[in-house]
Amino acid sequence: SAASSTIRATLFPGDGIGPEIADSVKQIFEAADVPIEWEEHYVGTEIDPRTQSFLTWESLESVRRNRVGLKGPMATPIGKGHRSLNLTLRKELNLYANVRPCYSLPGYKTRYDNVNLITIRENTEGEYSGLEHQVVRGVVESLKIITRQASLRVAEYAFHYAKSHGRERVSAIHKANIMQKTDGLFLKCCREVAEKYPEITYEEVVIDNCCMMLVKNPALFDVLVMPNLYGDIISDLCAGLVGGLGLTPSCNIGEGGIALAEAVHGSAPDIAGKNLANPTALLLSGVSMLRHLNLNDKAEQIQNAILKTIAEGKYRTADLGGSSKTTEFTKAIIDHL
Amino acid sequence: SAASSTIRATLFPGDGIGPEIADSVKQIFEAADVPIEWEEHYVGTEIDPRTQSFLTWESLESVRRNRVGLKGPMATPIGKGHRSLNLTLRKELNLYANVRPCYSLPGYKTRYDNVNLITIRENTEGEYSGLEHQVVRGVVESLKIITRQASLRVAEYAFHYAKSHGRERVSAIHKANIMQKTDGLFLKCCREVAEKYPEITYEEVVIDNCCMMLVKNPALFDVLVMPNLYGDIISDLCAGLVGGLGLTPSCNIGEGGIALAEAVHGSAPDIAGKNLANPTALLLSGVSMLRHLNLNDKAEQIQNAILKTIAEGKYRTADLGGSSKTTEFTKAIIDHL
Ligand SMILES: CC(C)[C@H](C(=O)O)[C@@H](O)C(=O)O
Ligand SMILES: CC(C)[C@H](C(=O)O)[C@@H](O)C(=O)O
Repeated sequence: SAASSTIRATLFPGDGIGPEIADSVKQIFEAADVPIEWEEHYVGTEIDPRTQSFLTWESLESVRRNRVGLKGPMATPIGKGHRSLNLTLRKELNLYANVRPCYSLPGYKTRYDNVNLITIRENTEGEYSGLEHQVVRGVVESLKIITRQASLRVAEYAFHYAKSHGRERVSAIHKANIMQKTDGLFLKCCREVAEKYPEITYEEVVIDNCCMMLVKNPALFDVLVMPNLYGDIISDLCAGLVGGLGLTPSCNIGEGGIALAEAVHGSAPDIAGKNLANPTALLLSGVSMLRHLNLNDKAEQIQNAILKTIAEGKYRTADLGGSSKTTEFTKAIIDHL
Repeated sequence: SAASSTIRATLFPGDGIGPEIADSVKQIFEAADVPIEWEEHYVGTEIDPRTQSFLTWESLESVRRNRVGLKGPMATPIGKGHRSLNLTLRKELNLYANVRPCYSLPGYKTRYDNVNLITIRENTEGEYSGLEHQVVRGVVESLKIITRQASLRVAEYAFHYAKSHGRERVSAIHKANIMQKTDGLFLKCCREVAEKYPEITYEEVVIDNCCMMLVKNPALFDVLVMPNLYGDIISDLCAGLVGGLGLTPSCNIGEGGIALAEAVHGSAPDIAGKNLANPTALLLSGVSMLRHLNLNDKAEQIQNAILKTIAEGKYRTADLGGSSKTTEFTKAIIDHL
């Protein structure tokens, strides 16, 4: 029956421009007959003691139950005594890998052509341990934690991704010449996994050199896997090569096959509610979600419609130099479905 | 007398292509009548117990005495029980700030025009503390140390540099949204110093966002100051924007006014001894050294000759797409003096 083939997915529209771009996703998915029923959850206005953040326990339960979700931008309210919304989601849902495909959009010119990179970021530990303290006045330290378990897990994910997506090379990005123990363990785990994938070329690149090579010639890379902070840095750098976070999708993978796709850009409060926002990053994240659900035809159809609309250039939002409203851009995509 | 106006400076030709590019510097400086007498020091072949590395104690003493030096690439010999040559120099000479001017070379096309950035990197602590250990099997940690003293010192250097070089803006690069205590202290120190320089615009930029902005539009930045690892990453990224480490100078500033300029690129053993190396980075580092010594006319004269030679394009080494030998390129620069 139609009901039994409907997939329930959690939707966090988020703050600022979030609701508008989430509307765009809902309309386009509906127009494409995507068999998804959204469970919408908003960020709370009070700290939920069970999550220690403004995220409600119910919203986390929704993702846990549905195992799949899509998330707009969430601005963490300022103040003390609670955790960042993004970090709470990663922690509570054990979202261990952040995957960001980054490719040139046909017809949208940047300084770089034919970029086609995948960054895979360890998303749970490293420099994001949250362990910091003052040693004496004027001397503070932060702990970077690397574990064998989390490193193997993200390395497995990266090689599996490379193989199943027809990619040829995995580059592990590190600074093991300086952090011999932590980044050294990360590399050791990557090497172990690499041995199980002889068909994938494996290499190790020091992060400073990697950034230099990326800006000189991004075609040197294919799939990149790295500890948390390097992933944070390099995924944004790569997004910059093709136009920025407004155009690039992101998907977080958790234990047990949970996938939470998200637009990584900010909530842009200055243009919120003005029908000016560009929904592309959230839309392409939704497409990642569809691929995760093996709804590949729908994913392809929607992605093509987005890319065609941008390539034609008739309807573009202000951030891409156009003057279309969010709703006009959305309608143009629907017309291209 | 001529003798009394001669400045003694230490020269580390370094390994691989080091001696060839150092020859180029010596010839050009001599042709320009630069009043410098070089004290040459090579990396030793045995570990010097006083430095715990292959650097000899005498060579460190030479820099301490002369207070100024120029360094080619040094490949740290592989093996255990000794320290990296670069790190030993930074530590022993207390080289607390690494300054890297990064500008587009006229006539040498990259994807970016009119880049003109200065990265100033804290060079002694942070993620380079060397403090790491295994907590239990499969769990390792590294300590990032930030101190008020080192942060104030590099911030002072950055603002002083900005002011004395007619720069308008200093951007402190950080990840204090995650490392609130360490990067938070770094920012606090930058803010304190910023207050003393009301004529310089001060801003704070998160490192991931900074990298994205740099690749999209480097003109958004002017002087950047940051903790050690971010400086390592961003200075190489910036070098990539204008062609790479073969073209960009670097200078390390130590307590008591010591300056050790250096070419940051590798020793390129594959082309060593073949008269193929590009001496530009070492030459421009030498120019930084001259500026540090207030030999500004000589600095200007030599820099102009280098830039003119590259701009003309008739004599370029292989890395820049030409076919000139190191010695031909050197001679062309001398002809332009
Ligand atoms: C907002 C911030 C905490 C977050 C991070 O540092 O991970 C962001 O930069 C990201 O990449 O999702
Ligand atoms: C060689 C390496 C230890 C060094 C560093 O990480 O500082 C290098 O990358 C640099 O920037 O001088």
